[in-house]
Amino acid sequence: MATITHLNGNGVKPNGHGVHAPPLSKEAQALDSSDLDLPDIDPSKLTITLANDLKPLPPPESLVFGQTMTDHMLIMSFDPTTGWSAPEIKPFGPLSLDPASSCFQYCPNVFEGMKAYLDPEGRPRLFRPDLNMDRFTKSTERVALPTFNASALLELIKKLVSVDARWIPKKRGYSLYIRPTLLGTRPGLGVAASTHALLYVLLSPTGPYFPSGFKPVSLLASEDAVRSWPGGTGGFKLGLNYAPCFQPQRQAAKRGYDQLLWLLGEERRICEVGQMNFFVVTQREDGDLDLLTPPLDGTILPGITRNSCLQLAEAHTTGREPLDTLKEKLHPSERAITMADLLNFSNSGTLLEVFGAATAAVITPVGRIGYNGSDIHIPTYEGGLGPVGRNLYERIVDIQEGRYKHEWSVLCSE
Amino acid sequence: MATITHLNGNGVKPNGHGVHAPPLSKEAQALDSSDLDLPDIDPSKLTITLANDLKPLPPPESLVFGQTMTDHMLIMSFDPTTGWSAPEIKPFGPLSLDPASSCFQYCPNVFEGMKAYLDPEGRPRLFRPDLNMDRFTKSTERVALPTFNASALLELIKKLVSVDARWIPKKRGYSLYIRPTLLGTRPGLGVAASTHALLYVLLSPTGPYFPSGFKPVSLLASEDAVRSWPGGTGGFKLGLNYAPCFQPQRQAAKRGYDQLLWLLGEERRICEVGQMNFFVVTQREDGDLDLLTPPLDGTILPGITRNSCLQLAEAHTTGREPLDTLKEKLHPSERAITMADLLNFSNSGTLLEVFGAATAAVITPVGRIGYNGSDIHIPTYEGGLGPVGRNLYERIVDIQEGRYKHEWSVLCSE
Repeated sequence: MATITHLNGNGVKPNGHGVHAPPLSKEAQALDSSDLDLPDIDPSKLTITLANDLKPLPPPESLVFGQTMTDHMLIMSFDPTTGWSAPEIKPFGPLSLDPASSCFQYCPNVFEGMKAYLDPEGRPRLFRPDLNMDRFTKSTERVALPTFNASALLELIKKLVSVDARWIPKKRGYSLYIRPTLLGTRPGLGVAASTHALLYVLLSPTGPYFPSGFKPVSLLASEDAVRSWPGGTGGFKLGLNYAPCFQPQRQAAKRGYDQLLWLLGEERRICEVGQMNFFVVTQREDGDLDLLTPPLDGTILPGITRNSCLQLAEAHTTGREPLDTLKEKLHPSERAITMADLLNFSNSGTLLEVFGAATAAVITPVGRIGYNGSDIHIPTYEGGLGPVGRNLYERIVDIQEGRYKHEWSVLCSE
Repeated sequence: MATITHLNGNGVKPNGHGVHAPPLSKEAQALDSSDLDLPDIDPSKLTITLANDLKPLPPPESLVFGQTMTDHMLIMSFDPTTGWSAPEIKPFGPLSLDPASSCFQYCPNVFEGMKAYLDPEGRPRLFRPDLNMDRFTKSTERVALPTFNASALLELIKKLVSVDARWIPKKRGYSLYIRPTLLGTRPGLGVAASTHALLYVLLSPTGPYFPSGFKPVSLLASEDAVRSWPGGTGGFKLGLNYAPCFQPQRQAAKRGYDQLLWLLGEERRICEVGQMNFFVVTQREDGDLDLLTPPLDGTILPGITRNSCLQLAEAHTTGREPLDTLKEKLHPSERAITMADLLNFSNSGTLLEVFGAATAAVITPVGRIGYNGSDIHIPTYEGGLGPVGRNLYERIVDIQEGRYKHEWSVLCSE
């Protein structure tokens, strides 16, 4: 399917995507790109330029999340007159962009977070990548960027992972983090939707967040800062949701907490944990357990690990796919959870576990939550994770790494 | 003060700022840059590399806002081990950045909007640039970017304007738009404040928004989408405030409106007009006029034109600096204005003028506002602007262009 050439030299060359594109026509400014009959992403046009000098693989134990990039990247661009360019897999290297580009000035920047895993047969696998592609498309529309065929993009991502498959560490809990990124690259300072775009995918090998056993994190309930709002963009995977969290996060760290617990409104509704979805496990009177998480009301990121936890709880409780060591039934429920609810659970002794769920760390246990000047202490467990968090973590990782056969896990090459 | 060299070739070379910076130390991640004793911006270290081939000046009438850049740009970078680099004025050209940079992934991107004007003696002038520098600093802190000496930056901006002064059109209402931009350039996918930064300033010649008389714009009151909220970032000049507006703006355009009127909360409080501050003029029973605008509660951008309008109204009414053709006293007031208030003003016949105020267009009259399926019609005036908007516009432009002597206008070179 692809033209393969070898690049001489140092394996890195600047690329010219998005630089000095011509000013847009009035028509292009007025129309959605989806209204235009322009070429979409076409995997049959892929060209592959391999790096001559491959980087040495670092020891897996030395990896810091998101700091090491593989040898190659996937890249393509959108122009309002010619549509999506032919996709390229080429050596990882810098982007060259006009300093007036939208992505610098007005931040129509979208990303996704997914991972590739090695199964016992040594084959690269992805975990529910259709959900990433669906969310990527929705985020793209929210910031009015040119849209694209998400199935075609997924085909290209699988190809990129295959090219750099040697980078997936052969250790349980390790994987290759995949970062699709879409930037508006319209050159110009007028405040308007970007009619130009650059789409690229980076790969970064990564280890477990907690290599030596899970360590419960501490959270500080946010006081003034608010992460998202009804009518805002908190339900989309946009770069612009993150920078506003840096300064409040720094304040939390100065006060001795690892992460923020984001709250909303006078009723102090719980939204997210740092950059993770929030889960709480409570004891029911009938002996079963409840697994609670806030509903997708537009202020909550529709996390894929979040969705998987809810579905695995359901499958456990119906007996279709019982979790390995969890005896109790586990009833998933998407409902608003306020700080008053959490205090009630804690005071009544029904609070069993609190954890965050996300692609990077899968499941992160919470040990205490600072709120109104004192700490709510969450029960702790040997090894850091409670029985529900532990069972969900093991099942998800077993599916991801192909040890537990499941339709959620798909091979990169058929 | 500066080393001046001439660049051979095409006048454009990629710059390497922020590319492949080394991974940060634990210390650098944990500390505010302001805690570190590192070199600040130092105008005495400026180097100037002039373009050999200067671009031809376009006819002023052909200018589209923000599309034409001058010959040069100012640029400098921050590294957590070496501090702020020596500033450079060099030919305008692309940036070369690591694709994992914070500015692409998490959007800690800050900007300012200011202008340079020619006075009757042909000297370049700035308008209240200290307020831009103060806001730039506050925005920088809000997204936890490395801070800098704002006075030193202003000195360098004046120098850049002097270098490209031939680009300021010699016509009333024309000016040189100045776009200081600060980007987080930390290379890495971990979600954390950027310890690296790139600061640059672009210049773009621009004409009046309404070259052939002011044309009142139509607004659609936002229904679902919300621009800003308490605890958010609407009170700061951040790129990330803008991309969420593109899709709602596109919907408004499809329904035949020029801009959005941003509302907040169940009481439908008015926030901003597109990217401008909102003003309404009402008739008082005592014959005087009220000039109303929403207060700076954290959801409103602290606009410099906004502040100037309020101060000029005060100076008019006290008799210190009477406006040229406005007979009535004009009482400035920062107060919440709801859609119910606006309907009351309209129904009672006390609604005289509605306009937006911002650096790019100065004063933009509003002709109608779509709300709940019908239009509120604002009184219209010959030439497009009402007497208050007209007097404020004329006074501000006269100060900016040095015809009306005022401390707000400062020379670029002493």
